[in-house]
Amino acid sequence: MPELRKDPIIGRWVIISTERGQRPSDWPGESKEKLGGFCPFCPGNEDKTPPEIFSIRPKSMEANTTGWQLRVVPNKFPALQIEGELQRRGRGVYDLMNGIGAHEVIIETPDHYREFNDYSIEQIENVLLAYQSRILDLKKDKRFKYILIFKNHGRSAGASLEHSHSQLIVTPIVPKNVLEELDGAKRHFNLKERCIFCDIIRQEIDSDKRVVTQTDNFIAITPFAARFPYEVWILPQGHSSHFENVERNHYTELAAMLKDVLSRLSKALEAPPYNFVIHTSPIQDGDLDEYHWHIEVIPKLTKVAGFEWGSGFYINPTPPETACAHLRKVGF
Amino acid sequence: MPELRKDPIIGRWVIISTERGQRPSDWPGESKEKLGGFCPFCPGNEDKTPPEIFSIRPKSMEANTTGWQLRVVPNKFPALQIEGELQRRGRGVYDLMNGIGAHEVIIETPDHYREFNDYSIEQIENVLLAYQSRILDLKKDKRFKYILIFKNHGRSAGASLEHSHSQLIVTPIVPKNVLEELDGAKRHFNLKERCIFCDIIRQEIDSDKRVVTQTDNFIAITPFAARFPYEVWILPQGHSSHFENVERNHYTELAAMLKDVLSRLSKALEAPPYNFVIHTSPIQDGDLDEYHWHIEVIPKLTKVAGFEWGSGFYINPTPPETACAHLRKVGF
Repeated sequence: MPELRKDPIIGRWVIISTERGQRPSDWPGESKEKLGGFCPFCPGNEDKTPPEIFSIRPKSMEANTTGWQLRVVPNKFPALQIEGELQRRGRGVYDLMNGIGAHEVIIETPDHYREFNDYSIEQIENVLLAYQSRILDLKKDKRFKYILIFKNHGRSAGASLEHSHSQLIVTPIVPKNVLEELDGAKRHFNLKERCIFCDIIRQEIDSDKRVVTQTDNFIAITPFAARFPYEVWILPQGHSSHFENVERNHYTELAAMLKDVLSRLSKALEAPPYNFVIHTSPIQDGDLDEYHWHIEVIPKLTKVAGFEWGSGFYINPTPPETACAHLRKVGF
Repeated sequence: MPELRKDPIIGRWVIISTERGQRPSDWPGESKEKLGGFCPFCPGNEDKTPPEIFSIRPKSMEANTTGWQLRVVPNKFPALQIEGELQRRGRGVYDLMNGIGAHEVIIETPDHYREFNDYSIEQIENVLLAYQSRILDLKKDKRFKYILIFKNHGRSAGASLEHSHSQLIVTPIVPKNVLEELDGAKRHFNLKERCIFCDIIRQEIDSDKRVVTQTDNFIAITPFAARFPYEVWILPQGHSSHFENVERNHYTELAAMLKDVLSRLSKALEAPPYNFVIHTSPIQDGDLDEYHWHIEVIPKLTKVAGFEWGSGFYINPTPPETACAHLRKVGF
């Protein structure tokens, strides 16, 4: 059973994954590389993944057969386990609990070689609807507090399999970066009775220096204090605290914007590896006036890593205004 | 002039380095690669670096000539500038200040090919004494709040030049990770009137599951909630808040321990790239009862990066107890 352990100094929870690779040569990603040419995500290999939880396929077809457009399956090497109780406990100065949660893989396309920004808008919409559907289902389980959805694109951004997919990790705690955003947003709301994200959007539209693109309901910006070159955030223009509560007809527009932003990054930076992560409200909270869900897209361009991890201190060599001007220019 | 910009949501300061590379192909590290075979840190090339600030060399010799054992020079491409005023200011919802600070390079050895863990203990002691000397000098400048000392070893850990060196960045703010440790440690002290790090050391010695090695005055542990496989912390056993206040005769012992830990990591993990970073108290603070300086050593083994950056959520596939057992075994 994996453990969730809390850093006693700063309070950050970490998954200590006792049942995955234990030897240094045995990292999760690398052990899968050994599969060579075989891809468990390709059509025809449905029996090589755990049975599917969700799929988009013609209604007449059976689950776990070919003919699908999208599948969601449990991760074969889950970081957290779905069965069991949390058993929160102390051990001297330390706090820990059982690694209860869920870890799912969204296989976004049957086409092994197609990349996310080359999908049709409809296919990206399917991916977003799959995220929504899984959140709505998983939030019924009251043991869980947060659902983290992310995509690693490219090996150096952490993708362990070439076939395009995203991941979903359900946790009994709120991840640190999201908690900090929730706390900071709450402080701003207590002071001003306004959402800080709404304030940022208004100021960005007004100054027009960091707006990459906007539609009626969404906006993409390079953040003022971006940690990374070409970091882009996508936000709903109207206040909205939960990704899963987006109106049905807005997902098409969001899909188009995500495709647009990823295509611009691909053109501007020659198809870089990247990650995106959805920051949304904790699943058991009702609508929050102070928090605003958004997608953070981070191209992986710089190699410096451990130093930033060790200090929390970032040096960004590309001002977000410069990145924004470049991303505007390469629009299509 | 670089800018220090504050994230309006979570309050993290970031250096936006306007005068370094602005185009995506122009990252600081990579532009230096173009130097090819030429090394500005090698003896004979002293005029290719800015004039030295500190050196260890025979007393009869002139500065900026060959014959040195160690040199400290300003970074030729500094992230922050030494001259000027902070000019803290607002811009709507945003806060920023001028990028005032210092950025120095510690050239640890004249030998282009010698790596840190192969230095003599005396040479490592020289490096530590150079760190101390620079801190004692720089803390006189009251514009500055923090001195961050770190080493990137290996290209994938962020080293842009092969010749072994470490870096020092002086900032008018306290880096986020250190601030979180200071705040967490203060909360513990307010509750218990004890230093949390001292409590951890006592518990680790008692349980003896995560102690890699110890001497009279120092201890190396794999932390209970380690974010990374084989992460190791080195701490003084007695309470001490400031690295620069270590007793003169303890630096030899610390040098020996650092060599021991890096050698164990090198043996256990086949000479991995790594970073180390010194976490110490803000330079303008007097002795702190609640904070305990330490060195965090992070081997760069996993590729997953952007996801952790985006979420603050870490999955560590190697329990620190397993890493510790392995590091004990490879001791020499």
